[in-house]
Amino acid sequence: MNSLKSVFSARSVAVVGASPNPEKTGHTILKNIVEGGYQGSIYPINPKADTILGLNCYPSLSAVPGDVDLVVVVVPSQAVPGVMDEAGAKSAKGAVIISGGFRETGNNQLEAEVLDIAAKHQIRVIGPNCQGFNYTPQKLCASWPLVKAQGPIAVISQSGTVGATMEMWAESENIGISAFVALGNKSDVNEIDLIEFFAADSNTKVISLYIEGVKNGSRFMQTVSEIGGSTPIVVLKPGRTEKGRKAAESHTKSIAGMDQIFDAVCKQLGIIRANDITELYDYSKALGLLKKPTGNNMLVVTSSGGSGVIATDMAEENGINVIGLSDELKRELRATLPDHCVVSNPLDLTGDATADRYKKTVQIAAKDDNVDFFLLIFGDPIPGAFEIVQELKQETSKEIVVCYLGGGEVEKEEVQKMHQHGIPAFPTPERAVKAVKALLSTKNATKGVNNFEFSNSSRVG
Amino acid sequence: MNSLKSVFSARSVAVVGASPNPEKTGHTILKNIVEGGYQGSIYPINPKADTILGLNCYPSLSAVPGDVDLVVVVVPSQAVPGVMDEAGAKSAKGAVIISGGFRETGNNQLEAEVLDIAAKHQIRVIGPNCQGFNYTPQKLCASWPLVKAQGPIAVISQSGTVGATMEMWAESENIGISAFVALGNKSDVNEIDLIEFFAADSNTKVISLYIEGVKNGSRFMQTVSEIGGSTPIVVLKPGRTEKGRKAAESHTKSIAGMDQIFDAVCKQLGIIRANDITELYDYSKALGLLKKPTGNNMLVVTSSGGSGVIATDMAEENGINVIGLSDELKRELRATLPDHCVVSNPLDLTGDATADRYKKTVQIAAKDDNVDFFLLIFGDPIPGAFEIVQELKQETSKEIVVCYLGGGEVEKEEVQKMHQHGIPAFPTPERAVKAVKALLSTKNATKGVNNFEFSNSSRVG
Repeated sequence: MNSLKSVFSARSVAVVGASPNPEKTGHTILKNIVEGGYQGSIYPINPKADTILGLNCYPSLSAVPGDVDLVVVVVPSQAVPGVMDEAGAKSAKGAVIISGGFRETGNNQLEAEVLDIAAKHQIRVIGPNCQGFNYTPQKLCASWPLVKAQGPIAVISQSGTVGATMEMWAESENIGISAFVALGNKSDVNEIDLIEFFAADSNTKVISLYIEGVKNGSRFMQTVSEIGGSTPIVVLKPGRTEKGRKAAESHTKSIAGMDQIFDAVCKQLGIIRANDITELYDYSKALGLLKKPTGNNMLVVTSSGGSGVIATDMAEENGINVIGLSDELKRELRATLPDHCVVSNPLDLTGDATADRYKKTVQIAAKDDNVDFFLLIFGDPIPGAFEIVQELKQETSKEIVVCYLGGGEVEKEEVQKMHQHGIPAFPTPERAVKAVKALLSTKNATKGVNNFEFSNSSRVG
Repeated sequence: MNSLKSVFSARSVAVVGASPNPEKTGHTILKNIVEGGYQGSIYPINPKADTILGLNCYPSLSAVPGDVDLVVVVVPSQAVPGVMDEAGAKSAKGAVIISGGFRETGNNQLEAEVLDIAAKHQIRVIGPNCQGFNYTPQKLCASWPLVKAQGPIAVISQSGTVGATMEMWAESENIGISAFVALGNKSDVNEIDLIEFFAADSNTKVISLYIEGVKNGSRFMQTVSEIGGSTPIVVLKPGRTEKGRKAAESHTKSIAGMDQIFDAVCKQLGIIRANDITELYDYSKALGLLKKPTGNNMLVVTSSGGSGVIATDMAEENGINVIGLSDELKRELRATLPDHCVVSNPLDLTGDATADRYKKTVQIAAKDDNVDFFLLIFGDPIPGAFEIVQELKQETSKEIVVCYLGGGEVEKEEVQKMHQHGIPAFPTPERAVKAVKALLSTKNATKGVNNFEFSNSSRVG
């Protein structure tokens, strides 16, 4: 079998079933590959068209000159076995079968036939019945919607929609993804293969998983155990309720398994469990861009008293310690801050706070051994917030978690800059605190987050 | 005392402490009043400037020709009593005191003095130490950030930041607000006065409250009880934990009270309690734009199997019934829908679903007495989603709750259209289901939601 690496780094792609009709999936995928900026050769395959999107069109895969690394298949299911044979003749490393009409509709026979042909030619198969994949380091969006922003999160999803949602959020926030892979029927490539691949992928810092069941529990456990937390994994797996489990089984035509067992496995392996799509995203964003604090003693620095109160409630409810301040620290802060600031925890710099006031506060408090990490809440239009957070991150080894809200246009600009430079900002105190809890729940080793840098040129807002 | 109505519908506004310096609050507020489109007279007051933002500037309030209905005060606290006396001479109905330096810093005496003068002249006081107010029906944004989108939600907040966040979300989603009022020190106008006002305000369909404590518990209960659910109230009140409660008391310099008692009061009065800012927003959006379903039997119609599973879990965990389908309903749906659709609940129309397929499904199922309401999940780029939801809302009295996610540019367009026409769409199944739970928890009477229409011209996206 070819490696998944050879699939994701394909130097040429054919879209079998490419269409000139903008309403067809075979058009959308071709368009996304082209507009995504893919640098390899692109071959639309359609016997009824001469060109599509300005590209020469070929009547069949066999008619393409030379080899084809990756074949994206968007033709009716009955035609797929023939396409796979042609793909083999073209030395294809991988096939992404978008088409439905296989095991999910009872056509197990046809799916087995396709797999047999793929195995004969050593072709790795993603799908069938899936939303394709998007690998941003290669600018290869063989999926939809078109998402180009490169970032630390690899999304593996049994639901195209959940995956697309994660991609869209990551792009709109300028956080970006390393990849999105839709599992579809998982006839060959499954979540375990992908976890292995992305754990070894230097573009990926966190794996974000939506699954409704695991096919091979013991291999899943062994694989995750071998990774040993080097690449943290966040998982959303519904089926917590009886009806939810039945709906999952109806969706994937497989056994969803007992939720309690899965939960115990997650705890044992250090997998972070999300309860909804928002948590899946937030936890992935935190784990991809922040390091684990050395302890759970938090100092909240805020310009918004209310936000500080909300953060305190959430922290207490999530086992994070909103520490009391030592007399020495209080003295030092009082000597520096204006009288109307509330020197406590949460530390309320009040509505006239400037970025500089935050900076001085963190510089003083970072010397206190009782403080493990900071939650900075910018609750007003505070220009310069990005710059001081970036500076403070250089100065102190204590992690700084940022929340920015209620700051109008200034907020949008500052958060944009933070995200461009790999500093995550969360939109509410609650979401920030829950993300911290996820960080604190990980195993210690993480994959060089500190050395992680974005190339600005490869990111699109 | 003047009525709050005379304050919010002021025909002239003076900004005392207006500044030509764009970094000052006295500039921002004046700018927001001007750029918000306020139609009344605007008087900047500053002895050191001739004009600000192209408006004639006056050296003092007394120098303004004629009366001034509303005075926005942004001068240092010591100067506020003098300004209030001048305001009285100008027959002001209300004063919004932005300035801090009163009770929150221990200057109780100064605050009492200001109140005495206000009482003498029958001036209503909002603040001091607050972020002002924004009343969109009058295009009067005496606050920041500038938010112009008019909609059904009145936000009353003890935290300027939480209120601003709600405003920003409502504007970015094109849902809009009727008002935002910052409570500040609540020296005169408090949340009870504002609840009374907005319950009677025809522009407001739901009251969204962030408070850290209630000053007069029995009047609060009596007021809410008299409203009797005609205008639903959503409240976020932190202080659920011991440290959160102490932080709240430190923030507002008042007793926060036992959370259990407040919770019991909410249950008794039918006040919907939110646990975080996102819930406060979502519940307000739902209660402002949807009617209460007649029962808790839900049919989920989706193009995304995974989203249907997630919705099912959330529904079961929140006491919403994902009903089984009757044989008759199944038969009728099977006769209409393509074979690969999963005729169950969640009803999976699958990834090739069109808007028309949703429409036919709802038309058939709406006739079934077991179905109380629908959750429509659009989990793909499905053009025309807005049109069919609008049509279906005319055809059936059963409420339709919309969730749209993973749909790329098409999603953005369709959701934009829905929100422009007062149809709320939620961004994840989890948030949609929780919003439904909030709807189901309200008392029955609501304030003519069905007759509620937006004027497009008054909304800004």
